[in-house]
Amino acid sequence: MTTLLASPQIDRLIDLALEEDLGAGDVTTQALIPPELQGEAHIRAKEKLVVAGLPVAARVFRKLAPEVEFSSKVADGQEVESGAVLAILTGPVAPILTGERTALNFLQHLSGIATFTKKMVAAVAYLPVALVDSRKTTPGWRVLEKYAVRLGGGRNHRGGLFDGVLIKNNHLTAVGSITEAVRRARKSAPHTLKIEVEVTNLAELEEALNIGADIVLLDNMGDADLAKAADLTLGRALLEASGSMTLERLPQAGATRVNFISMGALTHSAPAVDIHLRLIKTW
Amino acid sequence: MTTLLASPQIDRLIDLALEEDLGAGDVTTQALIPPELQGEAHIRAKEKLVVAGLPVAARVFRKLAPEVEFSSKVADGQEVESGAVLAILTGPVAPILTGERTALNFLQHLSGIATFTKKMVAAVAYLPVALVDSRKTTPGWRVLEKYAVRLGGGRNHRGGLFDGVLIKNNHLTAVGSITEAVRRARKSAPHTLKIEVEVTNLAELEEALNIGADIVLLDNMGDADLAKAADLTLGRALLEASGSMTLERLPQAGATRVNFISMGALTHSAPAVDIHLRLIKTW
Amino acid sequence: MTTLLASPQIDRLIDLALEEDLGAGDVTTQALIPPELQGEAHIRAKEKLVVAGLPVAARVFRKLAPEVEFSSKVADGQEVESGAVLAILTGPVAPILTGERTALNFLQHLSGIATFTKKMVAAVAYLPVALVDSRKTTPGWRVLEKYAVRLGGGRNHRGGLFDGVLIKNNHLTAVGSITEAVRRARKSAPHTLKIEVEVTNLAELEEALNIGADIVLLDNMGDADLAKAADLTLGRALLEASGSMTLERLPQAGATRVNFISMGALTHSAPAVDIHLRLIKTW
Amino acid sequence: MTTLLASPQIDRLIDLALEEDLGAGDVTTQALIPPELQGEAHIRAKEKLVVAGLPVAARVFRKLAPEVEFSSKVADGQEVESGAVLAILTGPVAPILTGERTALNFLQHLSGIATFTKKMVAAVAYLPVALVDSRKTTPGWRVLEKYAVRLGGGRNHRGGLFDGVLIKNNHLTAVGSITEAVRRARKSAPHTLKIEVEVTNLAELEEALNIGADIVLLDNMGDADLAKAADLTLGRALLEASGSMTLERLPQAGATRVNFISMGALTHSAPAVDIHLRLIKTW
Amino acid sequence: MTTLLASPQIDRLIDLALEEDLGAGDVTTQALIPPELQGEAHIRAKEKLVVAGLPVAARVFRKLAPEVEFSSKVADGQEVESGAVLAILTGPVAPILTGERTALNFLQHLSGIATFTKKMVAAVAYLPVALVDSRKTTPGWRVLEKYAVRLGGGRNHRGGLFDGVLIKNNHLTAVGSITEAVRRARKSAPHTLKIEVEVTNLAELEEALNIGADIVLLDNMGDADLAKAADLTLGRALLEASGSMTLERLPQAGATRVNFISMGALTHSAPAVDIHLRLIKTW
Amino acid sequence: MTTLLASPQIDRLIDLALEEDLGAGDVTTQALIPPELQGEAHIRAKEKLVVAGLPVAARVFRKLAPEVEFSSKVADGQEVESGAVLAILTGPVAPILTGERTALNFLQHLSGIATFTKKMVAAVAYLPVALVDSRKTTPGWRVLEKYAVRLGGGRNHRGGLFDGVLIKNNHLTAVGSITEAVRRARKSAPHTLKIEVEVTNLAELEEALNIGADIVLLDNMGDADLAKAADLTLGRALLEASGSMTLERLPQAGATRVNFISMGALTHSAPAVDIHLRLIKTW
Repeated sequence: MTTLLASPQIDRLIDLALEEDLGAGDVTTQALIPPELQGEAHIRAKEKLVVAGLPVAARVFRKLAPEVEFSSKVADGQEVESGAVLAILTGPVAPILTGERTALNFLQHLSGIATFTKKMVAAVAYLPVALVDSRKTTPGWRVLEKYAVRLGGGRNHRGGLFDGVLIKNNHLTAVGSITEAVRRARKSAPHTLKIEVEVTNLAELEEALNIGADIVLLDNMGDADLAKAADLTLGRALLEASGSMTLERLPQAGATRVNFISMGALTHSAPAVDIHLRLIKTW
Repeated sequence: MTTLLASPQIDRLIDLALEEDLGAGDVTTQALIPPELQGEAHIRAKEKLVVAGLPVAARVFRKLAPEVEFSSKVADGQEVESGAVLAILTGPVAPILTGERTALNFLQHLSGIATFTKKMVAAVAYLPVALVDSRKTTPGWRVLEKYAVRLGGGRNHRGGLFDGVLIKNNHLTAVGSITEAVRRARKSAPHTLKIEVEVTNLAELEEALNIGADIVLLDNMGDADLAKAADLTLGRALLEASGSMTLERLPQAGATRVNFISMGALTHSAPAVDIHLRLIKTW
Repeated sequence: MTTLLASPQIDRLIDLALEEDLGAGDVTTQALIPPELQGEAHIRAKEKLVVAGLPVAARVFRKLAPEVEFSSKVADGQEVESGAVLAILTGPVAPILTGERTALNFLQHLSGIATFTKKMVAAVAYLPVALVDSRKTTPGWRVLEKYAVRLGGGRNHRGGLFDGVLIKNNHLTAVGSITEAVRRARKSAPHTLKIEVEVTNLAELEEALNIGADIVLLDNMGDADLAKAADLTLGRALLEASGSMTLERLPQAGATRVNFISMGALTHSAPAVDIHLRLIKTW
Repeated sequence: MTTLLASPQIDRLIDLALEEDLGAGDVTTQALIPPELQGEAHIRAKEKLVVAGLPVAARVFRKLAPEVEFSSKVADGQEVESGAVLAILTGPVAPILTGERTALNFLQHLSGIATFTKKMVAAVAYLPVALVDSRKTTPGWRVLEKYAVRLGGGRNHRGGLFDGVLIKNNHLTAVGSITEAVRRARKSAPHTLKIEVEVTNLAELEEALNIGADIVLLDNMGDADLAKAADLTLGRALLEASGSMTLERLPQAGATRVNFISMGALTHSAPAVDIHLRLIKTW
Repeated sequence: MTTLLASPQIDRLIDLALEEDLGAGDVTTQALIPPELQGEAHIRAKEKLVVAGLPVAARVFRKLAPEVEFSSKVADGQEVESGAVLAILTGPVAPILTGERTALNFLQHLSGIATFTKKMVAAVAYLPVALVDSRKTTPGWRVLEKYAVRLGGGRNHRGGLFDGVLIKNNHLTAVGSITEAVRRARKSAPHTLKIEVEVTNLAELEEALNIGADIVLLDNMGDADLAKAADLTLGRALLEASGSMTLERLPQAGATRVNFISMGALTHSAPAVDIHLRLIKTW
Repeated sequence: MTTLLASPQIDRLIDLALEEDLGAGDVTTQALIPPELQGEAHIRAKEKLVVAGLPVAARVFRKLAPEVEFSSKVADGQEVESGAVLAILTGPVAPILTGERTALNFLQHLSGIATFTKKMVAAVAYLPVALVDSRKTTPGWRVLEKYAVRLGGGRNHRGGLFDGVLIKNNHLTAVGSITEAVRRARKSAPHTLKIEVEVTNLAELEEALNIGADIVLLDNMGDADLAKAADLTLGRALLEASGSMTLERLPQAGATRVNFISMGALTHSAPAVDIHLRLIKTW
């Protein structure tokens, strides 16, 4: 986790965030708060949620003012009730107020994803299927959002274009056939990567299985077809269902014996959760 | 709009996005698509939406491959029906497929905000109130998300800590009283900025009006109290209502004669809209 | 102040400064100074000045060699006599000599602005007028230079294009009239910002007042006209005088009852002050 | 010149400058100027000056809006009278107004240095001495300011710590003697660099000459001593005079037969010159 | 290929390279070459080699001076004889000379890797084995060096820590057993990645096969053991041999029926090849 | 040394290296190693070598996880036998394994250069000639590679285009004659730099000496001609031999009485040395 946050890419995102919010300076705090004023502030959940992003929030304050002490009271991945104190900050009040919004914006977005993921995962908890994310993430946030999905109990699909061969609809339009596409991939893609093919019907699934695809992505197929796909496949490849998944449909889709269900909504449409920072006392 | 996108900050976000998705390279496209293959692809709305982010999408492809021609078929801010073609891309197929997801991720998020904002704005369309956003934005995305809010018909609150004095709850805890806080702000904040004070009841509103606040933020007050606040204020300051706003409540809250309603959800919880890229033909 | 310096933008400027001075390495120090040699050095004012930039200087050394201890002997904003010790550095001699020039270059420029500002502010000390800076700053230095102006007793005008509506000559050429320009601004600019209009004569002032401008910038008007403008305005708007201000003219201009005098020279033409670093002893 | 401006370091400074001025966006221009409005603007000298920085100004606009045509009417290094048109811009009005201040800030600072340098150089025009700059530059601006010095007729001293061995006072304190310091430098510094020693009296000069210094920097010595130094040296080394140089003293100091006079003021204290941008017409 | 070079990471490396070589400016070219001098220069191979890096070289010049026309005469991946012209540059002479060394440094390193790889690949040309690279690359150069390996006929192993599960010696020390390590990997690593285990003897190979590793890395085993490993495996997993590979040993090792041989030397020890730039004429 | 590593440019290279290797995260370590597992690891030489880069390796781990303690057991520049422990790391195992390859890649490349340089320097150890590097370095690595050359006992030639006037073949093609070229250089290049001219025969050497070149680079001349050049020069200029230098030829070339021999191979073709990291125990 510490190592995760050491990625220079995350630092670049935090820098962007601080620059866009601080700009020419925090005029309110500069005008109102004497630099020597010390205080204690609490970060608190205002609804039930799965915590994600505390080390990022800590880093925001460490960048602003290393003398602010940021003490996490829970760990990323924990589920807390409304009212729970997530972290206590002590030190100069000015940078605490200046960093408040940026830190909360990270927390509310990442905890939102973890919380939403947990709800979705619960819907298939007793089924032999894993819920995975997609590349439909917020640009600039890939590593962080995939981390939040894991905290919510989901698993990660590929991290980007580099760590999984996924032959999609548009590739097939360009190449002509599943068979030819898989052949090309096997000939030159890194041998450490499995080969996945997106199909939209059972005939295409058959072709993908015959050419030896490692994973088949069943795109936008109904639950009946998903079950038929599992019958047809008989373990020859991993099956992943995708498209039009909702909380309501998940139990049924999860029961079709596909191995994975992928949901873009985990990262692109999870609503933010409500988290506050309150100054408790000053001295 | 062009000028908006020329901001080096937006380039830094696009760079982060491309680096996180491309990483060590697009193994699928490299293996499958011959570099000389040319083609035409369409970006299409898969639901009714307000378009936002086409110049960003164009810039993604210009960075990847300047020889891809990106031709917008509608303008940012237009509302289109499901099925509408938003842009046509022609040129080498490989970079079109490599850039597809990053470009769509920008479009689906920004158009999601514009579309959601438009729905909210419609709820108070005939009322003398403006809907404004907040600083509860996705870190790294401030300028882009506030642009999308404007496209959806919303107005922008301050851009950051630098362009508006907003004396909040935590500042008051540190300073002691509204009166003293406004005095300090008037003494040293830039004279180009109005002074806004957050209050939670009518007594505080009274104090804020008496010391001459330019804007008063009525935090988490019910509609009855909002109306009383307007009665009390009689135009002496601009009034902004905030907290617990939903589509359902907006018409009532908007009828209380406050001048502005601010909603963090416009930027932090708008769901992504569905936008696809399809390769139409190759040669 | 600490928080001010935590801005990633300031780090980027310090990085640029170190890279341009260090380049391929400090050949003199590498050849002459054994890495294990320890020493003490003093940073000293060589003329009377207002100190500005000590935290930046400290940061320069912290980046170069965290083991150099930088101990400020005065605080930013203090006025000191020639000969005063501003800071004492102890630790390895090599990085002290390598960082010397970069640190002094920051100090001499920022202290130059604070010192120059203080002189100007003194000229209107007993008058009900505030001296403010402008956007005529050294590119890359906006936040730092505006900080130095505050240390010298000046106040800040807007920080950039984002935190104040200032309708200037060129905007009026494009829009046609002050009245129309103010209307457009009021319709769509953030409501947290005041609206300022630049005028060059009393007729334009009248128009600006009638349409309800919050601030009027009186550009390049003589002191007699400034006084007439104040008579005409009668508190309906804040008045700001600008153009051709010199130390000599300030008392007269300041007595015209305008509220603000803005001077670009505070940041673009303040001469550097003389500050040295001397190695006192080594061991 | 084009090549000069291609340095990624200069791009980083321009990016900093644009980010600090644009921040969350140009609220005035966005509110007032329709994106489709076209126009022509002139950049004009408001006093007699030596032009420096036109390619930087052009680059500022190219970054903001490549569709703005920037046409230089004079070349960097030319001296122009007050009123001269330096450049004509045509294209969309909005980005012209948004980029105006940043571009002018570069021009006024660099032209200020070139103009100031030219005045100083003129004071020793008929003397066999060259005026050189120093490392006392504005952090982040080294390459640009040294370029402006050359345009004003000055010559450059070393570019940084990497391209000249300059043994100063503090090095001598650490090493113990000029003789030992020069020996160490000769032993390990790159052989492409001359070795320069700073001395404060004739005895030290003697020592420096004896050990074979290539250049001797005569620090803060009076004109009489400078002349004696030249007598003593007899061409055995290049002599450079430094410290307390003013326009008034230059002719006398320049007549002492030292080879170079270095002046930090060329870069750290040259006042900005007055340059305007006016929108001429729109369509 | 164009798309490859659009990666912002490669731009960052080119920026670093230009900054470190240009520093305060090209003093020789500035002093000698009039800016208006035009010319033609040829980049030429001085030995037989496989070309790699021409688009990077072109980009170096495009950054320095877009008006230099860079026309490739061969394509990356082609093998050319000593004396072959790789590219012709026409335009202003100054930036051609300024960019020469940086461009050649990219070309000589990347072509060195492609050439060296081709020699190694030739040693196993008729054997059913593929030569692959490793993560032992030059920091900052991963994507470029792996591209050069492909041009030389090699294949790529994983691009980084993110696109292949490779359980090495040190992981086993921490986890305790191959069986447990593979179980953990299967439980939580992305399902798009194969699982590879490093073993040092046949017993460990047996354990890895039993737990179902997709790929087994045979570390530093002799050719006899490699052949036994192939006998034992019978296609149940892909086999990769690694360690102590030399040109001399490759044919024997390649004949053991392992599927892959990985060589760190492809990227960390390929000698540079000799490539020159000559100015042919000027006008 | 510490100061060397404080250069922001080196940080940028380390950032690039970490980003390219970590990408979306270390999937193996995340899956296998519990975050709380602590351990001790040793970095060990696997062959006789000159150590270079330990502070860079330390910095890699400090960025990844400040809580990993990195304790160097030898100093950069020391020659060690195969098996020697270079550093001991203690702390959380996960970041030690994640950073292993990046740290080793820095060490193996820099120690490779130092080791190779030492071997070359030994070949001329008793001769009055110094071995120097060139600008033929790995792009992005200039400062680090030149540091490694010094550790191996070599000396540095110029650091870039900015710190030495070197008039080469291509400059002479453009200018016409050595005499004219040296004149131009003397007229405008910084006076702190020596002027070096590249010649290919004795006639050109004569011309260079006559016009007063400080250094003459004898390009690709045989040992007999090098000796004649020394006879001809008689100390009027420093002589540097370059081109086609090999370990075998060095003693002869070094005996010709030239002052310097420059070798591009020191930096562009030194093979990497073998350095490992082993996890010793965990708890």
